[in-house]
Amino acid sequence: MLNNAKNQHDSIRAVEWKNDHLILLDQRKLPQNEQYIEFYNAEDVAEAIRNMVVRGAPAIGIAAAYALVLAARKSYKQYPNDWRNRLEVEKEILANARPTAVNLSWALKRMCDALVGIEGDPIPTLLELAKTIHSEDIAANHHMGQLGAQLIGATHGLITHCNTGSLATGGYGTALGVIRSAFAEGKFERIYAGETRPWWQGSRLTAWELGKDHIPYKLVPDSAMAALMKTKPIGWVIVGADRIAANGDVANKIGTYSLAVNASFHGVKFMVVAPTSTIDLDTRTGSDIPIEERSIEEVLQVGNQRIAALGADAWNPAFDVTPADLIDVLVTEKGVIHHPNTEKIAQLMRS
Amino acid sequence: MLNNAKNQHDSIRAVEWKNDHLILLDQRKLPQNEQYIEFYNAEDVAEAIRNMVVRGAPAIGIAAAYALVLAARKSYKQYPNDWRNRLEVEKEILANARPTAVNLSWALKRMCDALVGIEGDPIPTLLELAKTIHSEDIAANHHMGQLGAQLIGATHGLITHCNTGSLATGGYGTALGVIRSAFAEGKFERIYAGETRPWWQGSRLTAWELGKDHIPYKLVPDSAMAALMKTKPIGWVIVGADRIAANGDVANKIGTYSLAVNASFHGVKFMVVAPTSTIDLDTRTGSDIPIEERSIEEVLQVGNQRIAALGADAWNPAFDVTPADLIDVLVTEKGVIHHPNTEKIAQLMRS
Repeated sequence: MLNNAKNQHDSIRAVEWKNDHLILLDQRKLPQNEQYIEFYNAEDVAEAIRNMVVRGAPAIGIAAAYALVLAARKSYKQYPNDWRNRLEVEKEILANARPTAVNLSWALKRMCDALVGIEGDPIPTLLELAKTIHSEDIAANHHMGQLGAQLIGATHGLITHCNTGSLATGGYGTALGVIRSAFAEGKFERIYAGETRPWWQGSRLTAWELGKDHIPYKLVPDSAMAALMKTKPIGWVIVGADRIAANGDVANKIGTYSLAVNASFHGVKFMVVAPTSTIDLDTRTGSDIPIEERSIEEVLQVGNQRIAALGADAWNPAFDVTPADLIDVLVTEKGVIHHPNTEKIAQLMRS
Repeated sequence: MLNNAKNQHDSIRAVEWKNDHLILLDQRKLPQNEQYIEFYNAEDVAEAIRNMVVRGAPAIGIAAAYALVLAARKSYKQYPNDWRNRLEVEKEILANARPTAVNLSWALKRMCDALVGIEGDPIPTLLELAKTIHSEDIAANHHMGQLGAQLIGATHGLITHCNTGSLATGGYGTALGVIRSAFAEGKFERIYAGETRPWWQGSRLTAWELGKDHIPYKLVPDSAMAALMKTKPIGWVIVGADRIAANGDVANKIGTYSLAVNASFHGVKFMVVAPTSTIDLDTRTGSDIPIEERSIEEVLQVGNQRIAALGADAWNPAFDVTPADLIDVLVTEKGVIHHPNTEKIAQLMRS
């Protein structure tokens, strides 16, 4: 049944390596235009991460891994005797493209660790590893989909936030992977997807994915989720993560924390789905996670259309932190943790 | 000090009677265009209420009162012997323009009650009463401003939602009236105004009002309010109401309930500011309040710009219900109720 699900409800890839270059689906242009951009050097990829051509913590990590291949190719060609030092510069540019999601530095570290012991041309080794990171992410998502779907009983509706699907990952998705698997098992009637202001990941991306894969959904203004939980039978809120601290606190797209507070108030269960590459044991608690604040123009205008009054100021944090004690279940590819805390997470990471 | 406040921080009127007609500031066009529309008949006003040329529970009531003057003038002129029956038809059209705010039917009832005993031309009596309803609303707002501001201690920030200012009322505002008064008294540094998806009352209207009256503010995506309450010192959430049930449950702009749940979770106090015309003793509890669902296009597109994926469905309730037990204070022109309930509200309405 899950194999069927893979075929029927997973038709999108946002990050791909083709021949000698990286291809990214430009997520700023969706859903109006399905437009792909080719990348031949790492600095352009860093810029694409910053500008959200590619977004979603796991997808950013994978794109950065491929970008490091591009960087190494250039360094090795131009400076065959000094390529490691030259590569370091581009690695730093990539690492600093966005601050919150830890998968970015995780992927870069894994790539750079592989440089040790390489002699001669590093490209074959690095490209193979980047492809492995990519395929492992997809496999992790399918496994998490299975683990998460098992936890879901038959229900009318599930709530999700932002986009955590194929667009946000190597493919299939984290929270949206669980939703794909649960849909294949007939567990729910409808997804309620938050619009996810200000970048509209819900309206633009999740709606596009769910539509393509024929999973029934309704878009809901983020502020209406409390009323939804009160007035309709909702089984779970299911979200992804950009960084999980050692104690289980979760940084994720702005609005996640409000959903967690409301889920707790309404007795709706709250599930976080993320590969272990999102867990950062070096970050002790949520308050140690750097929260990116983006341009206020994202709040004040939509596309080229000005919404807010002239002279308006705004607050535009891209993420918020949900404390571990509001999380019922953390689903990773290594297993499921109920009521995550420091000990359980340490144990999972040792396993 | 409050008199100063009135002069300095209350420069806008959205509903006005001029000579022989009603003028409404077209709130669909703000903040880009400050455009006024003249109305000479009641059906056009009903349409304007439906389309949100005028919005905000008290402003809708005042506009409907003036519209009844227009309706009576037409009926009396065209059917001097049958004008009361003819008027009834237009009254019903007005009453059904929008379902949730009770100020609409409250104002129409008050106008129609005045018809009893009128002989000859009803217009002078009705116009005087409509002007009284209007001026009483402004006076009530100033009084509520004073009462509400007294409750507020010095704090960094206050949160508000939707638009409850001069645009939503006869003038000065309900929640925004309290904010105007509190600002004049130097009680806070900054207002945090929710964008208020999907109609952007915060971004378009509240930002415009606060900017005009030089009150410092930041716009905040509705979903970021929980993170705001957690990370910055917030004294109160202050909102208006569209209908208050006999037990103190409050229907207000979608998103209010989520703010109330989050305020309770974070120990932030929650204030509702509304004239007693918003209290409906015939509505027993919040679950008896009809909640208007508006076109899904409000969610799927912004102006003429399509946001959501093609084929997307949405849920677009215009209001939600906040239960009385999440409300710390209800401020009315007749006085302040702490922890509102059926008994306290009945007592207030008898006073």
